[in-house]
Parts: sequence; structure tokens; C-alpha cells
Amino acid sequence: MQFTSERRLDDGVLEREFTLGEIPGILWTPASASASAPAPLILICPPPLGLSKMYPRLAGRARYYAAEYGFASATIELPGSGDRPRWAAAEQARADLRRVMEAGEPVGDEIVDALVLPLVEKAVPEWRATLDALLSLPEIGGPVGYEGGVISIGARLAVVEPRISAAVLFAGSFVPRTIFEEARQVTIPLQVLLQWDDEGNDRQAALDLFDAFGSKEKTLHANLGGHTGVPQFELDAGARFFARHLT
Amino acid sequence: MQFTSERRLDDGVLEREFTLGEIPGILWTPASASASAPAPLILICPPPLGLSKMYPRLAGRARYYAAEYGFASATIELPGSGDRPRWAAAEQARADLRRVMEAGEPVGDEIVDALVLPLVEKAVPEWRATLDALLSLPEIGGPVGYEGGVISIGARLAVVEPRISAAVLFAGSFVPRTIFEEARQVTIPLQVLLQWDDEGNDRQAALDLFDAFGSKEKTLHANLGGHTGVPQFELDAGARFFARHLT
Repeated sequence: MQFTSERRLDDGVLEREFTLGEIPGILWTPASASASAPAPLILICPPPLGLSKMYPRLAGRARYYAAEYGFASATIELPGSGDRPRWAAAEQARADLRRVMEAGEPVGDEIVDALVLPLVEKAVPEWRATLDALLSLPEIGGPVGYEGGVISIGARLAVVEPRISAAVLFAGSFVPRTIFEEARQVTIPLQVLLQWDDEGNDRQAALDLFDAFGSKEKTLHANLGGHTGVPQFELDAGARFFARHLT
Repeated sequence: MQFTSERRLDDGVLEREFTLGEIPGILWTPASASASAPAPLILICPPPLGLSKMYPRLAGRARYYAAEYGFASATIELPGSGDRPRWAAAEQARADLRRVMEAGEPVGDEIVDALVLPLVEKAVPEWRATLDALLSLPEIGGPVGYEGGVISIGARLAVVEPRISAAVLFAGSFVPRTIFEEARQVTIPLQVLLQWDDEGNDRQAALDLFDAFGSKEKTLHANLGGHTGVPQFELDAGARFFARHLT
């Protein structure tokens, strides 16, 4: 992990850009974090729209977590997002998705699988390698929380990565059948966000996925509004969920 | 409103029992409440099991609200609960409900209506009279929140009582069709609790009721577990919801 920039924000949070091999990322640490008082860590998985586009929202979350709860936060560019290389099958799947949605046709399992499974296969090892690197920093301690906009990545990570203790997931994307089955193996505490009127997301499918998660503690927060309308107060609700499980 | 007892609890909260006509109730006010700094008020509607049985839970909630958020809280005995007189139709409806549930038969609309509508008709004016009395106390200010275990009472109150600014409702009881229709007229912010595995409550009916509420801001908190298994952390989640809307 190489730090490529460093600046102290006006609230005392240290923001550092880094690269891990070809993966760019950003780490935010509260002013209070040190080797003698390492901060719990939140992994913030962005939606696949590119870090530079998502920066204001991601940084806003990270700075809130740091200021109010003393958490460090980190994010990385997803495979195929931002300036990272695309791959042909993903481009094809995106084109297929656009075509069937514009035609008003149902989105078949093949398209969902082609769209999501390769992303999960690539992103999950990258997140784990990032976690290795972050936890080697003296000012970052466990335990670790995860939050993110691609619920399939979160579900897989929650199953395979034992260092993640709790997760806030956003029920807002197409979920392959295999991931749905993996969800039954998740045992960590979950808080799942659902936008009740999400035009691109089937409400019943989201409720079924919430039902499928194997966790004994899981809470669904359903709010009125469309895909991008998650209320601001859910940031604090998520932070308090993490505070219960990470501190 | 006549105060019939008064004691200062060890956290400084003043607990006063009162009667309003034939209705017994309890008022808790934080040590900080005064005529120059009146406290916001939470109306805590108990389930129809009797105040003396519910006292530990009700007092625990009220003391938390007082200590952490500076809210006053009040509760009253519901009509037909505790030592208050029963009425024959309600006894009959309860017996009918027991009979069909023991037989594993579906609970028909007539039983739900007979069970719930007279309770709503009696309880709502009593809550409004109680609110009149409470708001005349100099140490109690608006705005007012409502929370409670009989969602039909909460739905009706939210429609007819403009002094209630926000409500936390528990989706855990039979809801008459007329109340379901009234729910569409509710406009205040709502937080609705749903127990995902509530044996006595149809999950889909609860989701439909959440969907029906007319409020622009409404959040569903669904948690794993049965009817009485609402997690402790929902107390604080409710308090923060009230804090957003009452202060």
C-alpha cells in the first residue's frame, strides 16, 4: 500500500489517497487515531460509478464517522469503475441490461449473473487484500465494519471474511441466485437499507433477500423514496449500529 | 387531573401517578423540566395488558427518554384494561378471537372490528383529554410525540390530533379495514416497528399497512424475532426519531 497524497481536513480528519497495486483508494482517519488508540475501521464500498464521482458522498460519510464516533473509513475503486480497465463481458452485460430495461422486459438471471458475479469475484479478493494492508497500519485497529452499495459484494464478503464483524447493506441492486443462497450463510449482525419506491429494484425480492440472511441480528430499515433517496438520518443510524458492534 | 402520588427517582426523574376522571395514568418528567424550560412530551400508549403489569417496561422507557433526551413521558390505562371496567362486547370479541385462533381458523373482519374499533373509539378521546391536561402543566411543552402498541389507536390519533407531531408505531395487532383506510390520511412522520417472525401478526398485512400510511417521511424498522422480541436498541432509535422531530 502506497500513500500518494495526504491532507488534514478542517475537522482534523487525515485524508490519504493510496494505491494497492493497481487499485486506488482513500483512507480517512480521525485525529484521535494512534498506535496506542487505534480506530475501528469501516470499509465503505462505493457503488460502481467511480470514486471521483462518489467522492463528496463517501468523504461526507467518512468525516461523520470520524468526528462523531472516532471510526476510520476506507474506500477503493471497484474493478471496472473510474479509470480502472473495463472487461468485455461486463460491457456486454451492461448493454444487455440497458436493452431489456428500455424494452420493458424482465431482467433475466443470465444478465444478472453476467453483470454481478464477475464483479463479486474480482472485488472480494481486492477488499480482503485492502483489509490486510489497512490492518497493518498501527493507527487502525479491528474490529471492522463494512457498508456498501453492491449488496452481492457485501454478502460474499460477510461469508468469507471473518474480520468483518457487522455490515450495513443497501438492498438496491440485482442479486444472482447463487448470492441469494450464500446470504443464508451470513451470520454477522446486519442492518439492511431498502428504498420502498426504488424504481430499479423489486421490493419483494429485496424483502426475500432480507429474509434469507442467516444472521440472528438483522434489521431492515425501509424508507420512502427512490433509489437515491436514502434519508440523511440513516447515516447516523448506521453509525450507531456500528458503534454497538465495533466498540 | 389529580396527582395521587409523587416520588423522585434516583436519576432525578419525577414520577407522578394521576387520575383524569376515572382514568389512571403516570407522568414522568426530567429533573430539568420547568416553566422556563418545558419538556417535549411523549405519549406512551401501553398494550391493553394493564399498567401495573406493564409498569417496568413503561417506566424504563420514560426514564431513558428523560435521562438521555430530556423528554417528559405519560401513559394512561386503556379502557377495559387493569382495574377499569370491561364491556360485554369486548369480552365477547376476545372469547371469539381465542376460539378461532385455538381452532386454527382465520380471524375474520367481524372479530377484528369488534375487538379493536370500540377500543379506538373510547381510547382516542381519552388520550386527547389527557393531552389537554398535560399541556396545561407549565413544565410540559409541545411538541408531542406518540408511541404505542395498539397501532389502530395510534393511526386514529395521528389523523385527528394535530398536536401530535411524530409517532413510533408497533405493527403488531389486528387492524380493522376502516383503520387501514384512515392510515392513508396520516401525514406526520412515522417510525413503524415490525417483528419479522411475529407469530400473531401477518407479515404481509403489516407491510401493506406500512405502505398505506400517507406520511411522506415513514421508516420501517423490521427486526428478527417474535412479538415480544423488539431489540433494546430500538428504544434509542425511537428516541432519536423523536429528537429529530420534537426538538
